[in-house]
Amino acid sequence: MDKYKSNRIQLFNSLKGEKEEFIPINAPHIGMYVCGPTVYSNAHLGNARTFVSFDVVYRYLLFLGYKVRYVRNITDVGHLVDDADEGEDKLAKTAKIEQLEPMEVAQKYTVEFRKVMQMLNALPPSIEPTATGHIIEQIEMVQSILDNGLAYEMNGSVYFDVLKYNEKLNYGELSGRNIEELYEGTRTLDAQDEKKNAVDFAIWKKAAPEHIMRWNSPWGEGFPGWHLECSAMGTKYLGKKFDIHGGGMDLKFPHHECEIAQGNAANGESPVNYWLHTNMLTLNGQRMSKSTGNTLLPLELFYGASDKIDKAYAPMVVRFFMLQAHYRSTLDFSGAALQAAEKGYKKLMAALRLLNGIAYQETEFSERDDLEIVKLLDSCYEFMNDDFNTPRTIAALFEIVAKVNGICKNNALVGLSKKTFGRLQEDFNGLVTQVLGLSDQQKDNQDQLDGTIGMLIDLRTEAKNEKNWSMSDAIRDQLKEIGIQLKDGKEGTSYSIE
Amino acid sequence: MDKYKSNRIQLFNSLKGEKEEFIPINAPHIGMYVCGPTVYSNAHLGNARTFVSFDVVYRYLLFLGYKVRYVRNITDVGHLVDDADEGEDKLAKTAKIEQLEPMEVAQKYTVEFRKVMQMLNALPPSIEPTATGHIIEQIEMVQSILDNGLAYEMNGSVYFDVLKYNEKLNYGELSGRNIEELYEGTRTLDAQDEKKNAVDFAIWKKAAPEHIMRWNSPWGEGFPGWHLECSAMGTKYLGKKFDIHGGGMDLKFPHHECEIAQGNAANGESPVNYWLHTNMLTLNGQRMSKSTGNTLLPLELFYGASDKIDKAYAPMVVRFFMLQAHYRSTLDFSGAALQAAEKGYKKLMAALRLLNGIAYQETEFSERDDLEIVKLLDSCYEFMNDDFNTPRTIAALFEIVAKVNGICKNNALVGLSKKTFGRLQEDFNGLVTQVLGLSDQQKDNQDQLDGTIGMLIDLRTEAKNEKNWSMSDAIRDQLKEIGIQLKDGKEGTSYSIE
Repeated sequence: MDKYKSNRIQLFNSLKGEKEEFIPINAPHIGMYVCGPTVYSNAHLGNARTFVSFDVVYRYLLFLGYKVRYVRNITDVGHLVDDADEGEDKLAKTAKIEQLEPMEVAQKYTVEFRKVMQMLNALPPSIEPTATGHIIEQIEMVQSILDNGLAYEMNGSVYFDVLKYNEKLNYGELSGRNIEELYEGTRTLDAQDEKKNAVDFAIWKKAAPEHIMRWNSPWGEGFPGWHLECSAMGTKYLGKKFDIHGGGMDLKFPHHECEIAQGNAANGESPVNYWLHTNMLTLNGQRMSKSTGNTLLPLELFYGASDKIDKAYAPMVVRFFMLQAHYRSTLDFSGAALQAAEKGYKKLMAALRLLNGIAYQETEFSERDDLEIVKLLDSCYEFMNDDFNTPRTIAALFEIVAKVNGICKNNALVGLSKKTFGRLQEDFNGLVTQVLGLSDQQKDNQDQLDGTIGMLIDLRTEAKNEKNWSMSDAIRDQLKEIGIQLKDGKEGTSYSIE
Repeated sequence: MDKYKSNRIQLFNSLKGEKEEFIPINAPHIGMYVCGPTVYSNAHLGNARTFVSFDVVYRYLLFLGYKVRYVRNITDVGHLVDDADEGEDKLAKTAKIEQLEPMEVAQKYTVEFRKVMQMLNALPPSIEPTATGHIIEQIEMVQSILDNGLAYEMNGSVYFDVLKYNEKLNYGELSGRNIEELYEGTRTLDAQDEKKNAVDFAIWKKAAPEHIMRWNSPWGEGFPGWHLECSAMGTKYLGKKFDIHGGGMDLKFPHHECEIAQGNAANGESPVNYWLHTNMLTLNGQRMSKSTGNTLLPLELFYGASDKIDKAYAPMVVRFFMLQAHYRSTLDFSGAALQAAEKGYKKLMAALRLLNGIAYQETEFSERDDLEIVKLLDSCYEFMNDDFNTPRTIAALFEIVAKVNGICKNNALVGLSKKTFGRLQEDFNGLVTQVLGLSDQQKDNQDQLDGTIGMLIDLRTEAKNEKNWSMSDAIRDQLKEIGIQLKDGKEGTSYSIE
């Protein structure tokens, strides 16, 4: 039986502000959309945490047997402008190839983003659509909203009419904001604005002459408003209403609020049943911020290239560290916390290797021990079903590790039935590698190999000095058998590996 | 001085059928377009060879100091249709999420393609545009060709008018085909065709009802003709005329021929100055073909998962093997040839490690030896300048290896001046790693490490048996120093790595 039938997931729906049971629209199919990165700057650690969080959601749903279509977009509409101040250079650069090309910038950061995601062992989404790749769909959605009377054109731009929308529907339902407050808060700020009301937002923007990225539209040359792309791509690939929409909590307002409004206005229904939001990161107890310099990029963390952290941490350690906090909790990055995570990760991997190295042996059955393992395994599912509570799942896995170490004698797990032993191996592997996505990071053994070969060379030299030829030959021959060739030279003995 | 100023490249231009000097339009900027993969099936070994070939072209141009914008597209317009035969299932599948989504298929194969390219150490292109992401640009190009009177609409499709084009320009100039022959060869075949002439080709196709991927256009719902995407994306990112266009030689006709016609018809000029084509692969002496089963996929080759080849070959060995043939030569994959390449690759990497491990020491200067190294290094550039002749470059690198081994004494290169020594290190590294893109593939040393630790454990056990405590303790302590902890148990001694 597919696991999803026996596992009922509760998730915290930002739309309701509480946990509720997850009921897919068309089980076993699930549609999930997560707002992806903007690829005009380096991949961000906060983004990485959000995507790792939803990677676990995706992995767990797959693990339960759901068929998940996971869409995570790439925001590649970039607001680069031709630099009019370049003077003489500018005039000379008439050839296309000499001009700044936003897509070249986007590609650079997209490649970096994918690298970071791959290092963090995040599965690629089912579809990774780009905003620039869906201009037609966005124009069509703008047209629908206009046709439905919930937007208006002004000087080549199209604005969403928030006040009119709010007459029948509730703008602010996701973020819990009140339209009157929003209105009061913004009305005096944009006196020069061409919008009818300051709360209105652009769904199509007229391109200024220096704006490089621009497309023809029924309203002239322009580009889509940022909130629109997710609505258009979500509708295209997941339908007018789908199950889960995720993102960082900083996107709740205005981005996701606008998505709800756009979905209602264009398609006549609220686009998403369950809205999930991840919490923010801090670094050494302080808010991350470019202006204060309190920042840390994923690659800086992986390569130890930052004075904000004591040393390099392997991507799998970072992933483990992230999952030790619940996605709705804030998470503080610090050397001490990462060091602790490193130990925990290694301990978990050691247990995984131990468990995978054991074959079932019949021992005296202990109902107590057997039941305890079964209950602990059950609890892992219960914790995952409880709004994807990875920290409690990890804690339960460590309880299993302690228990396994306690009953492991002479390479057997004493007291377990064959059935429980089998389930233990399968579930432990499944939860650690498939659900949490933690792989046993290949250790680079070069240093240790150099060291051990060096020791053997010394022992052989000693044996030779003592004219113990049988031993010196044995060392040379045994090394040769495993592909290590010793070479005696004037400077001493060196080795090469075949 | 930038190297490109002193290196004049000759390349074989398919348009001329001969080698000619490469003169960029806007040096140091170079625009290069290569037809990328169609992502509705597995990454193909022939494609991989084409992309590795152009990766070397890209790398060499960058190495010489050119600023290259390298565009390689992803053909993700897929001709998938709704399966009308699914019957009962079909009726039930009304939700978007339950329907076949071509972009989900495209993503699967795009991810695989990128993985293969990454394993082969091919640099990502500067821009990797998708066909579906440029529908607007393609529609606009169709419109231009219509406006210029070189295409006609018929029942919602738009066809390129080859005969009319050929009145003023030469359709067939790239492939050396004659319009009359083409016309004779096809006229009787498509009697039912809606085209005016059988040689005409579609630049916009009306979508049949069962065709999933479709976009609105001035001619109704449809999708772009395949030849069009490269013209539209090439023009968008590289301009109406750019320097280099590459692809497999199977694309010369009709694909590239049509690109030339489209460029002329839409933009009033031939789009590309230099057309480069890579040759085909064979497998064990036979043509690769799905129908005969004589096929080998890159991942099958890397993982040894095919009965067409004797064992797995590391991606770097495969890359080296590919570069041992010139891109315009056919290349036969076989176990024997790959084994030879494996040896060559290892020899080259060993030389690289040797060279990088030597510091300059002053020795008696030998003008003969010094000059020989300089000439060999120069010859590497000359071979690369000669239509990117990688096999001759590799041969010259091996001559350098032999020479280096000959003059290497006591960890010094005897006879070389400091300047030549410096150039040798720099150029050898640059040519091997930057230009040929060969990295020293990290060996997995786990087996050897297990073996050497096992030997040390045995030696320690022997010492203990002989009550040679100082030796047994020394082995334990030295291992501990390099992070290897021995554990003595009932079953013998095991170890763990910190």
